[in-house]
Amino acid sequence: MPRLRLALAQTNPVVGDLAGNSTQIMEAARRAWESGADIVAVGEMALSGYPIEDLAARPSFLRASRAAVEALATRLEAEGLGELVVVVGHPDGPFEPRLLGSSNAPTAIAQNRASVLQHGRVRAQYSKHHLPNYSVFDEYRIFIPGDELLVLRIKGVDVALVICEDLWRDGGPVNRVVKADAGLLLVINASPFERDKDEVRLPLVTRRAVENSAIVAYVNIVGGQDDLIFDGDSVIVDGSGSILARAPQWQPHLLVADLDVAAATLDELPEHVTRVTLDDPAPTTPPIGLDIATLPDDRQQLWDALVLGLRDYVGKNGFPSVVLGVSGGIDSAVCAAIAADAIGADRVYGVSMPSRWSSEHSRGDADVLAENIGFHYSVEPIAELVQPVEDQLALSGLAAENLQARIRGIILMAKSNMDGHLVLTTGNKSELSVGYSTIYGDSAGGFAPIKDVPKLLVWELARWRNEAAVARGEVPPIPRNSIEKPPSAELRPDQTDQDTLPPYEVLDAILDAYVSRNLGQEDVVALGFDPDTVDFVTQLVDRSEWKRRQGAIGPKISGMAFGRDRRLPITYRPTV
Amino acid sequence: MPRLRLALAQTNPVVGDLAGNSTQIMEAARRAWESGADIVAVGEMALSGYPIEDLAARPSFLRASRAAVEALATRLEAEGLGELVVVVGHPDGPFEPRLLGSSNAPTAIAQNRASVLQHGRVRAQYSKHHLPNYSVFDEYRIFIPGDELLVLRIKGVDVALVICEDLWRDGGPVNRVVKADAGLLLVINASPFERDKDEVRLPLVTRRAVENSAIVAYVNIVGGQDDLIFDGDSVIVDGSGSILARAPQWQPHLLVADLDVAAATLDELPEHVTRVTLDDPAPTTPPIGLDIATLPDDRQQLWDALVLGLRDYVGKNGFPSVVLGVSGGIDSAVCAAIAADAIGADRVYGVSMPSRWSSEHSRGDADVLAENIGFHYSVEPIAELVQPVEDQLALSGLAAENLQARIRGIILMAKSNMDGHLVLTTGNKSELSVGYSTIYGDSAGGFAPIKDVPKLLVWELARWRNEAAVARGEVPPIPRNSIEKPPSAELRPDQTDQDTLPPYEVLDAILDAYVSRNLGQEDVVALGFDPDTVDFVTQLVDRSEWKRRQGAIGPKISGMAFGRDRRLPITYRPTV
Repeated sequence: MPRLRLALAQTNPVVGDLAGNSTQIMEAARRAWESGADIVAVGEMALSGYPIEDLAARPSFLRASRAAVEALATRLEAEGLGELVVVVGHPDGPFEPRLLGSSNAPTAIAQNRASVLQHGRVRAQYSKHHLPNYSVFDEYRIFIPGDELLVLRIKGVDVALVICEDLWRDGGPVNRVVKADAGLLLVINASPFERDKDEVRLPLVTRRAVENSAIVAYVNIVGGQDDLIFDGDSVIVDGSGSILARAPQWQPHLLVADLDVAAATLDELPEHVTRVTLDDPAPTTPPIGLDIATLPDDRQQLWDALVLGLRDYVGKNGFPSVVLGVSGGIDSAVCAAIAADAIGADRVYGVSMPSRWSSEHSRGDADVLAENIGFHYSVEPIAELVQPVEDQLALSGLAAENLQARIRGIILMAKSNMDGHLVLTTGNKSELSVGYSTIYGDSAGGFAPIKDVPKLLVWELARWRNEAAVARGEVPPIPRNSIEKPPSAELRPDQTDQDTLPPYEVLDAILDAYVSRNLGQEDVVALGFDPDTVDFVTQLVDRSEWKRRQGAIGPKISGMAFGRDRRLPITYRPTV
Repeated sequence: MPRLRLALAQTNPVVGDLAGNSTQIMEAARRAWESGADIVAVGEMALSGYPIEDLAARPSFLRASRAAVEALATRLEAEGLGELVVVVGHPDGPFEPRLLGSSNAPTAIAQNRASVLQHGRVRAQYSKHHLPNYSVFDEYRIFIPGDELLVLRIKGVDVALVICEDLWRDGGPVNRVVKADAGLLLVINASPFERDKDEVRLPLVTRRAVENSAIVAYVNIVGGQDDLIFDGDSVIVDGSGSILARAPQWQPHLLVADLDVAAATLDELPEHVTRVTLDDPAPTTPPIGLDIATLPDDRQQLWDALVLGLRDYVGKNGFPSVVLGVSGGIDSAVCAAIAADAIGADRVYGVSMPSRWSSEHSRGDADVLAENIGFHYSVEPIAELVQPVEDQLALSGLAAENLQARIRGIILMAKSNMDGHLVLTTGNKSELSVGYSTIYGDSAGGFAPIKDVPKLLVWELARWRNEAAVARGEVPPIPRNSIEKPPSAELRPDQTDQDTLPPYEVLDAILDAYVSRNLGQEDVVALGFDPDTVDFVTQLVDRSEWKRRQGAIGPKISGMAFGRDRRLPITYRPTV
């Protein structure tokens, strides 16, 4: 059986940064060549970043992308890497629009492509067939689907090439390419992380490998891009379903493996399949070992995802530091810990902003948090800033409560304006779902680290993070008191969240059914919840859509988060 | 030639309000029957409202929609309207999902349908073939396309039925249905207003009528739904291209016309076309006159669109009133005038919030505006609210400027919390494009009436509105001084917008090219603009995406507005 050495390069692109992303690919190619690889593949759209959204409708961006592919091929050749086969994902165009729309709006003029580079040239191209258009994906909106299949012949082996969603369709392009007798299926992907997604993705890759008796090599990008987090986790599975190699999550990685691939036997090709015969590379081939990462447990994965989401948002947008309010409560404590893990405590600024209703323990818990983590810490009492506004406007009740939160928002934004910090807003998914927050108050900020983390999971992650610290012999970052005390907004005396909301055990379960699983009201009641509580919660959810639309983005970790993958009208009634 | 009396009912649905929308349709049907109509048609999704977005993924909502169609048929029969043929648009489902997605995200389980009701039953159904998925449209995401065609035989005439986008495709379902020899093409639509759209839509209807030698009857919904405004403008055009009837814009209307339709001659039908023979209604038929509305000029149309957008957002969301800051400047003056036209001056609350930098003329201009329009008016000086914050935090420069705007935001939100007003934010499209606003400050608010109106057009509309008042013998609402003085944020002494921004003539033209026409930087420069200015403006636009994402929604009036029909990443670089 012929042997191929394949490298999968899990890079961390920045959307639109064609030069920087090309450099990442160049470096991966050089390391792949030095590792003796015949082929190196990067992820879907690794050249442009993913998702490019409506940049795909800008002809100048597509022309620049195409030029960057050609420049990459030239540079590979110029730097002595011309023999190496490099498979790179990128947008291509502009092409004739796919649609004749009913307005002068942009229609799809781009394709989602993989280009195969060798000897300074684009030797072959494949365009994605299946364009996902659900959840966070909008590809059918921006891309023209391809309908041709591609097989690469190299060192006596046929390698079929497809892109992401193409792999997921039963009876899709993968089935047809199998008839072309490829021994290796190479799939380039931009597959965002979701909780428990590894329980879906790896079994799929395995199933495709086994049902086709072929090796499947799956390469993903890595990194945070706005609300998406790409976890990497690139993997190679053989025709018996065994993992041959697996990259770690959350970091750039070059996964190299020797593959014994069934020799190509077929000369005739099915319709719509093109075979391109490449030159056989002859790299030096020092022996290589197995490289199989193991995934950590669910909570570690989640924590790592949140950390990477924040780190890349800060880094890719060029913020020097972050600022957040620390109340002594669990949400801000967890956000501070994530921030310190992401960018280092010396780039984190915590501000305690006690009001006349802030309890002694709150101030104390915030002090302890600051001490544990070691971030920059300041105290800005708000009573004397609130009072003049409250007096002048004669505020009472909810208006007076919200005023306190908004003065805090002003303080954080002022510090951001003075020093360039990114403001973090510390609301969790449960609060956000029911609108239990003050708009322009505690919801003010550019990034919401735990936006997609329900309250019960916030506590669970806090406990886990502390245990992980203990296990490493470090100080647990989150004060025990912040974890154990009843949650409170402290906007009036003796307030707790449960004055307004059902217990979080009930709330989170109803939200899971109504928001994440998209059940109707009656279906939620049928699960056994109190009908009045369901009615109360679902009405809060529906009425909060406008507030969520005006909120910060934050990393998505669940199957259905607010934001891009749950799009509801603001003006609507009633709840069903 | 057989004669049909056709009624097109332009209703104003609320998304999700199946009961209220059904009642509107019932009332239209009763009036149609009393007017002697054989058939009445309402717009696309008139039963559910449009767009329903991801409500289409909720099985309980689809079941409720289907039940509402059946209930409507029953009610029509029960109330003596059973003979009348009623064509109603609605979502239907749940069906087997169209896609097997790569996650557990919802996939399309609904169809976009027209049901034909008679004698208490659903007699026939048509499912939309072409699902637009560009600009504000996401139909391919949420609907399963249909592939069957429908012809209704009634009074010896064949009536073909299609939905909205189906009409726009050359070689689409309309072409095929023509082979079925229909003499009347009935198209139900949910077609949002855009500036100059009447220059596209009517010519299309006319072209289809002429190329098929058939009458085309086009019925649209009307009303504001979040950022969309449906203008109505339903129309009937005969096979020679003449307008037989046309409904006014911006209001519910029942358009009734007698149509002499070519008799059906064909018995054989092409593949995938179903013919359903309906009972011939026998309404009393008093003679009717011609009903042909004329469209007003462009500025009146725009003004009416903005007024309706605000009125329906306020009304459908149940706000008692609106509050806005009035600075003496042009933007807030125009917003106040729109608000008063929309809901009456007695439901409008204007607040002047002078700072130490506010000029005498600003306060005076705000006073004059309040007097002209007659809204509730109060003055809340901010100097003594700003000072304590500025002192405690030692703010200067931009941070101190933004603080003033944020204190104003707090005042308006506090008034909203006390009295239930909707806060209007008064920024225009030019400012919003380049991020020339203070987040959580002047951008605070639930609705942005002129979000999609560039600055030059704000001035133009102000002048037009004043002229219209003079022509009607009314007091011009907008102070001349607000129109004529140089625009200023007044956050520091002697500030004007042009300290920071290029002249609005240049800015608006660059924004039109870069934002509305989606040209790249080099293409904009090639139009003759100064390269440094283009670079400056486009970088501001790109960097402001995060701020726009956290901003209020506002009515869309142009071909490409920010929001749903322009989706760009937040994290990206560089500008191309």
